Amino acid sequence: MKNISFLRLAAAGALLPALLLAGEGKWTPQQVLQSNEAELRKQGLQIPVSRLWNAAKGTGLLAATVNIGGCSAGFVSPTGLILTNHHCLFGLVQEHSRPDRDLITKGFLARTPEEELPGKTTRVTVPRKFTDVTKAVEAAVPQGADDLARNRAIDAKQKELVSGCEKTAGARCRVAAFDGGLQYVLIESFELSDVRLVYAPPRAIGEYGGEVDNWMWPRHTGDFSMARAYLNGKPYKPEFYFPISTAGVKPGDFVMVLGYPGRTMRSLTAMEMADMRDFYFKLRAEVYGEWIRILEEATKGNAAGTIAVASSLKSLNNVAKNAQGQLAGLQRGRIIEKQTAADQRVMAWAEKRPEYAAAVAAKKELDQLAAQRRATAVRDFLLQSIANGPLALRHATQLVRLSAERVKPDMERDAEYMERELPRLRDRMERDQKSYFAAADQALMRSWFQRMAAMGQAPIAEVPAVEALYGATRVTSAAERLKMFTETTEQLRARRDPMLELAFALDPALRAQQQSTRQHDGAVARLRPAWRRAVIAEAGKPVAPDANSTLRVSFAHVKGYVPREAVTYGPQTSLAGMLEKNTGEDPFAVPQAVLAAAARVDAAKVPLNFLADADTTGGNSGSPTVNGRGELVGLNFDRVWENVANDFGYNPAVARNVNVDIRFFLWLLKDVEKADGLLAEIGAAPGKAPAAAPAATH
Amino acid sequence: MKNISFLRLAAAGALLPALLLAGEGKWTPQQVLQSNEAELRKQGLQIPVSRLWNAAKGTGLLAATVNIGGCSAGFVSPTGLILTNHHCLFGLVQEHSRPDRDLITKGFLARTPEEELPGKTTRVTVPRKFTDVTKAVEAAVPQGADDLARNRAIDAKQKELVSGCEKTAGARCRVAAFDGGLQYVLIESFELSDVRLVYAPPRAIGEYGGEVDNWMWPRHTGDFSMARAYLNGKPYKPEFYFPISTAGVKPGDFVMVLGYPGRTMRSLTAMEMADMRDFYFKLRAEVYGEWIRILEEATKGNAAGTIAVASSLKSLNNVAKNAQGQLAGLQRGRIIEKQTAADQRVMAWAEKRPEYAAAVAAKKELDQLAAQRRATAVRDFLLQSIANGPLALRHATQLVRLSAERVKPDMERDAEYMERELPRLRDRMERDQKSYFAAADQALMRSWFQRMAAMGQAPIAEVPAVEALYGATRVTSAAERLKMFTETTEQLRARRDPMLELAFALDPALRAQQQSTRQHDGAVARLRPAWRRAVIAEAGKPVAPDANSTLRVSFAHVKGYVPREAVTYGPQTSLAGMLEKNTGEDPFAVPQAVLAAAARVDAAKVPLNFLADADTTGGNSGSPTVNGRGELVGLNFDRVWENVANDFGYNPAVARNVNVDIRFFLWLLKDVEKADGLLAEIGAAPGKAPAAAPAATH
Repeated sequence: MKNISFLRLAAAGALLPALLLAGEGKWTPQQVLQSNEAELRKQGLQIPVSRLWNAAKGTGLLAATVNIGGCSAGFVSPTGLILTNHHCLFGLVQEHSRPDRDLITKGFLARTPEEELPGKTTRVTVPRKFTDVTKAVEAAVPQGADDLARNRAIDAKQKELVSGCEKTAGARCRVAAFDGGLQYVLIESFELSDVRLVYAPPRAIGEYGGEVDNWMWPRHTGDFSMARAYLNGKPYKPEFYFPISTAGVKPGDFVMVLGYPGRTMRSLTAMEMADMRDFYFKLRAEVYGEWIRILEEATKGNAAGTIAVASSLKSLNNVAKNAQGQLAGLQRGRIIEKQTAADQRVMAWAEKRPEYAAAVAAKKELDQLAAQRRATAVRDFLLQSIANGPLALRHATQLVRLSAERVKPDMERDAEYMERELPRLRDRMERDQKSYFAAADQALMRSWFQRMAAMGQAPIAEVPAVEALYGATRVTSAAERLKMFTETTEQLRARRDPMLELAFALDPALRAQQQSTRQHDGAVARLRPAWRRAVIAEAGKPVAPDANSTLRVSFAHVKGYVPREAVTYGPQTSLAGMLEKNTGEDPFAVPQAVLAAAARVDAAKVPLNFLADADTTGGNSGSPTVNGRGELVGLNFDRVWENVANDFGYNPAVARNVNVDIRFFLWLLKDVEKADGLLAEIGAAPGKAPAAAPAATH
Repeated sequence: MKNISFLRLAAAGALLPALLLAGEGKWTPQQVLQSNEAELRKQGLQIPVSRLWNAAKGTGLLAATVNIGGCSAGFVSPTGLILTNHHCLFGLVQEHSRPDRDLITKGFLARTPEEELPGKTTRVTVPRKFTDVTKAVEAAVPQGADDLARNRAIDAKQKELVSGCEKTAGARCRVAAFDGGLQYVLIESFELSDVRLVYAPPRAIGEYGGEVDNWMWPRHTGDFSMARAYLNGKPYKPEFYFPISTAGVKPGDFVMVLGYPGRTMRSLTAMEMADMRDFYFKLRAEVYGEWIRILEEATKGNAAGTIAVASSLKSLNNVAKNAQGQLAGLQRGRIIEKQTAADQRVMAWAEKRPEYAAAVAAKKELDQLAAQRRATAVRDFLLQSIANGPLALRHATQLVRLSAERVKPDMERDAEYMERELPRLRDRMERDQKSYFAAADQALMRSWFQRMAAMGQAPIAEVPAVEALYGATRVTSAAERLKMFTETTEQLRARRDPMLELAFALDPALRAQQQSTRQHDGAVARLRPAWRRAVIAEAGKPVAPDANSTLRVSFAHVKGYVPREAVTYGPQTSLAGMLEKNTGEDPFAVPQAVLAAAARVDAAKVPLNFLADADTTGGNSGSPTVNGRGELVGLNFDRVWENVANDFGYNPAVARNVNVDIRFFLWLLKDVEKADGLLAEIGAAPGKAPAAAPAATH
């Protein structure tokens, strides 16, 4: 952390300690360390800011905040126990489920370490060190480079920095670009690849309310699961873990949400936002909405098929409903109209200041680029959607590309196909077999072909005979696919496998699109920083960068909201509300064991979910939600419907994240599972007084 | 009114003025007059109780509360203007709509009396006089009569009383039984049969939210329409009309809802309630749910078909959603479980008192009858559903029955086919042609046949060829049907019309069912009064009888509620909320003229709907909602979803009726319609101060 540069913040006029307020802002560790501590104390923080992150030692609350397969999670014991959302470990549960041993439905509890279930592909990364490398990256771009060359130079420099960083044993590194290149940070993490399932509640609890309640409030979902990380076959001992608070939260309480928010679009110009709306989200809602219906139809009444597509369906449902919410929220919140006004205000400000001439020019060029990209937006989306579409096509295009990349020197390869990524890619290709169900995959493929053919361009000018294609290909066999994984382009061609031939035919289009994306990224790296410097300077206060899957902190308070006229939502729900919704039928079927335990308590006194005004997005799933003393009070797992479009702008009136209350988890473990051992391990055994202060650094 | 007997209330121990509280209770005029006035004043009533109903003169607020085709309505001008719900005059709007003159969609406003649109079948009845005839009815039952004979004797006596009453010119009379015969009241009304449409908003306002919002809160529906009653070709001058309050309501305000609630089931035993749940409501939800899908499917994309079935569809939707709500509410409120406990409490009380031995025996027999009726419940329902099903079958069975009844002396006929009913029946048979759409009617018929055939009993043991049936019948021609209306049984048979032949084949089953219903009604008339006397005595306070389409008053306050955990509903909505819901697409498409007018005002200050805890049910649609001074502040038009099952029991926590605020009506007339003339006529012209007190009796 010695090399952290605050140049860019200083440029924004924040020479004094920055004023980070609760509410808007996914703050970086650097911004947190630089914050006005007195102000945070006034808002409810009861520990020194340095307890959040000790850059010298790489410890503190943030050291316990880990990334698990795109989700966030937290260590909660000195013995490597990790708490995250049920939906974040769903793939691991699915991996061990079979029609005759349906862990998805029944849930799972390992009563001894031996019973824990290992995951093929589940990995955890623990943050260690953040280094500002902006100057190094910028210096790597040759004078007079065009946008494509700029992108290649930045890419090469990043690979070089990552490669150097990963020389440390166990290190997993990346260079993260903030706001399109305003800042570059080299992030060193420690990767744990032996992660085992310890506890997952029945799906009826972990997903209570299902798609009906997803993104909704009031919510009654026990969205948590627990895993344990191992290192060299022994439980991993984290630098720091979160003590559990049994005192709970109440309306008005200060909380912090720590985690890895994935992607937001607040640094875009209004015209770029309109592009996102008109193509990205509208197409997601439409295409993925259709794919959901296709998968449901193709597996109806088939237990094996239903288990196979469960994970894809869950993900598509989430993405499609998110897209609908973004579209509704953009309209409802008039977000693009507001951004247009904000852009105009900054432009007027910058136009009066000669030192911001570059910002004015950059804004105009960003808008031109946005207008140009509309021409190919639908085709671009369909090509990108292969990553979420029929598995056979996804695998075939990956295999074809892999064979071409492998012959290159590692540092010149496409980042996804570098040696460091290959074990992961191979694991996924193997594990994907669990998600393959022929009828469903074929139906998806048919839909994809029809949409591509509708554009009447090569190589998909008409819809081929899908059944014949699947009948003849070997890509859908896991064993055969893994053989193909190591084959050369010539060997793959020699197979005359029709799915591979299709992938070869698509390859030029995919490469052309990638090239055009790189060129665009190069232009953005040139333009965005200039524009953002003007935006930040005009704001005259700290501005949190857009989410980019790096570690962030959001300061917040527990509070309800008014979703619409004549309706007020309170910020807390309880087991009583879960029982109130119980119909006995999916997705509102409370399991018998929970009903029985509930009958023995005052259900209104078992807290379940709570709202706060934390600034979150996808990737914050499983984020530890902690109180002012740094104790775990819950896990973030969702945002409310009215707040989905906060990816484009924060609206304090409706910006609410949804958390599962840790007291529900404790109640379930104690009253339903009788898991006293686990409770003791996380320091919350029955009768034990709540931890009075955060656990010491180990 | 001289003959009103309070014997039964006295029997309940209410020798002192009865304590009628706001909230539970649809009180009869008699109960209101007998109430504790001081208590009502404390709750918010600011006028003497005698201003509600002056029995000697037949005037007061209740005299302005009229019945319009099963809905409630109120006079609002000395010139016969009547305000009721949009959905109550929907048939009249539909009658004048054609694809090229779509009043349903566009709305209608008569700017002069000449432009008003007459209704073929719309009739208004104005209450005049209530006479307790219990002793006379009871005395008519011969000693030792069995249940069928009892029913016949009561029926004959009622006809005789009605016939005597209707000797007065213009009088329309009925004998209403309260709680199955605890009391019988002869009600004399004055009938106005010339009713003309004056104003209906566009459907997009009158039904804003459509089936999505129906039964829901928060609500933003302008559910009102206006008609004018004529007598001898001149505007009718009512005895009393409601002054309009422009002061509006606020949370906590006292209001009264006046009207004709149709039917409730609170006087049933728990076992009888379970019958209603298991057959009546479950079958309504299932069968009518299917018919809705059938009608929608059969008219999709056909403008004429859509207009034709609009009214049936609206009614079926309402009934089916109501049934679902009843079922959900019964379960959620554990109403039958609570009634079981209440029944047991009364039984325990009565068993200790020899004078209530008859009550104990009656309760047991009522439960036995309920158990017996289960055997034929499905078939009974299907036979009854002919009244809501395919028009051709409904008409054919009516024609067949009419020809048989007409040959009898008037007083011996089935009440529906007595001379006094025939003009109405003929009008309906004529007007029904507007609702006839061949494809839809055939599809309904097919569904009905399939369900009947599934029971494998005569006369419908298999599904006939429906298209051939419709191809050959003449019943579907309005002109031919009206000819049949006067034909004898022999003439009808001689036609060899297959639809009539089907009706002849069904006739014995329909008669048998009617006979069995009469026998049951006779038994209930014998048993229910005894049981209810025990229930009322045990309660030790006034108990309002079940709704029976007679005039009632509910005292209430404006208030919100908590529908479920973490959600609080405020009691008022505004135009701002309507705009918030606007998607531009049905059913949330605010018309352009309203959007334009809304842009010129602070929409949050134009009140739209409000909640109160009035005790209402179907039939209360269009009920005047008045403030403590008797001024009109709104119209009741719905109940909230959580309150649908209040037909079985009143739950103060969620018992809320939904009213349209009169201020929205005034705003629409003024700002959108510029209907200054109408506003002046109802004494609410722009700039005019609100009426300070109820208008004097004319």
